[in-house]
Amino acid sequence: MKPETINLVLVGFGHVGRTFHRLVEEKADVLVQRHGLRLSLRAILNSRGGVLSDQPIQARIRGGEDKTNCSAFPGWRSGLTLDTVLRSIAPGALVECTPSDLRTGEPALGYLRLALDAGWHVVTANKGPLVADFRGLKARAAERGLELKFSAAVGAALPGLDVGLRSLAGTEITAIEGILNGTTNYILTRMNEGAAYEDALNEARRKGIAEPDPTLDVEGWDTAAKILILAGAILDYHLTLGEIDVRGISGLSPELISKARSQGKSVKLLGRIHRRVKGSTAEVGPMEIDAAHPLFHVRGTNKGIVFATDTMGEVVVTGGKSDPRGAAAALLKDILMIRPRK
Amino acid sequence: MKPETINLVLVGFGHVGRTFHRLVEEKADVLVQRHGLRLSLRAILNSRGGVLSDQPIQARIRGGEDKTNCSAFPGWRSGLTLDTVLRSIAPGALVECTPSDLRTGEPALGYLRLALDAGWHVVTANKGPLVADFRGLKARAAERGLELKFSAAVGAALPGLDVGLRSLAGTEITAIEGILNGTTNYILTRMNEGAAYEDALNEARRKGIAEPDPTLDVEGWDTAAKILILAGAILDYHLTLGEIDVRGISGLSPELISKARSQGKSVKLLGRIHRRVKGSTAEVGPMEIDAAHPLFHVRGTNKGIVFATDTMGEVVVTGGKSDPRGAAAALLKDILMIRPRK
Repeated sequence: MKPETINLVLVGFGHVGRTFHRLVEEKADVLVQRHGLRLSLRAILNSRGGVLSDQPIQARIRGGEDKTNCSAFPGWRSGLTLDTVLRSIAPGALVECTPSDLRTGEPALGYLRLALDAGWHVVTANKGPLVADFRGLKARAAERGLELKFSAAVGAALPGLDVGLRSLAGTEITAIEGILNGTTNYILTRMNEGAAYEDALNEARRKGIAEPDPTLDVEGWDTAAKILILAGAILDYHLTLGEIDVRGISGLSPELISKARSQGKSVKLLGRIHRRVKGSTAEVGPMEIDAAHPLFHVRGTNKGIVFATDTMGEVVVTGGKSDPRGAAAALLKDILMIRPRK
Repeated sequence: MKPETINLVLVGFGHVGRTFHRLVEEKADVLVQRHGLRLSLRAILNSRGGVLSDQPIQARIRGGEDKTNCSAFPGWRSGLTLDTVLRSIAPGALVECTPSDLRTGEPALGYLRLALDAGWHVVTANKGPLVADFRGLKARAAERGLELKFSAAVGAALPGLDVGLRSLAGTEITAIEGILNGTTNYILTRMNEGAAYEDALNEARRKGIAEPDPTLDVEGWDTAAKILILAGAILDYHLTLGEIDVRGISGLSPELISKARSQGKSVKLLGRIHRRVKGSTAEVGPMEIDAAHPLFHVRGTNKGIVFATDTMGEVVVTGGKSDPRGAAAALLKDILMIRPRK
């Protein structure tokens, strides 16, 4: 059987974008054999311009060196816009990996709207546009019969969305609780082993786990954004970031952690949603959990989500790489799930 | 929007079948509101006969008493066959919950083939027919554009199949390892707390966890059947039960368990598949795992599955009720996932 070809346009060429590009090339044969699918990456764009090609753009060119800069690709055109690109190629899927802006969602929000209006499916690793306008994007996709997928935005390779949206269909989800940020879980794990906050943070920076400016992570906003997206997508419970009670871990004292440990407990930065008849609540903050809690043993950069349900009891997912390769794999999975499985 | 109606036929009216019937009634309003779906259970059959109705069959009739016997339903007809029923109603989904026969797969195998040939989707909680002829059933469903779903057969509410089939699409799964049997995990948990095997088994019997004849569970065959189904469905790696190296827990000495515990380890009955270039392997047996293993903390009747992948690292699912309500909820979920989500 002849494989089906899906055109891809990649916007954003940071760690995740570059890793995705290489992964598509690495997996090309498997995708044809196992999924009957040929992914054809026809354009790569960043904020300054892009490349547009008749043929799939090769990740490794000229002696096998990886391109870390979008403008190093042959055929780079300064000022090339997404609008132009989308009108030049048969619609497929837009893969969006630009940096998250949790306030405005831009410029990604504009890219996503443009793509949906042009008949392209959207797969994103970006929390920004989902925090800014999840309902609007969802409706825009649904009206056009298109898919809006965002597994990579909510915990990279951790399959929390899949489980919440599909595996728990027909249940009443009464609570969602998650360790959704690898950086802060790493810091807390090291603090639990005796390190001071600043030392643990610096260690995370040295290992490339924490970003140079870790504010969004350590102050809890990254977790809050993910909780907001999970609540909207799975529970149809729509929040703004301002409506979530958010506390971070930057002021956390080592004494609090050692006290918890001496009681057999552990402090974790949790995002929590409780569904109640008299109003639901969402919060993010460092919380003590005991050894019987299913997230107690989630250590280092690992993540985890617990769903409490009426008919299936507690369902827990943990693991899934937090790095760019894990996020790229989640983008790829979302693309494969656009079509019904053969 | 007018809800879509799906006709259901239920075969098998044991714990799971009865619980499923009540659950469909309990969830009727939610299914219409949230999924635009009206499930209409039009027939219930067991090995002796059944009922066939123009209207959805009520779970609670005459003063609210639950029917525990199929023949107590009004309109019961001795000798009514599935063939007759399927030809009398517009095709929907067959829900199959008869007891598992791991050798022949019958009588369920015949029911499933009959239903697929008559244009009905199949949703089953039964390992038997899948162990006997997974590939044949899968091909038969695919040729007719029908769905064959079996979440409830592989760990009830534990979403291992969903994660393996969808969330890990595009990854190379190098190993699957699972605690897939609640009864034996309960016994081992109690033995780890100091109980002798016979005492732990009797306790499990008293609590209704172990069946009167627990052979299939304690000798590892239930786990082996689930591993076989996971391997076939997720990895396209097809086995017979005879090709799996199966050891149970019935001969396990308390000394072995206390020795493991003294080393900080735990003995679990694991099913394991390893994918290797030079031949894959599948085995079931009691194995020592240490505290860093993601299934170390899975206690009591809980279950869990670990997938090792190339791009997403380790992805772990645990929890999900092991009881008839969990299995019934998994059947319901499978039915909801037959159609694309709205």
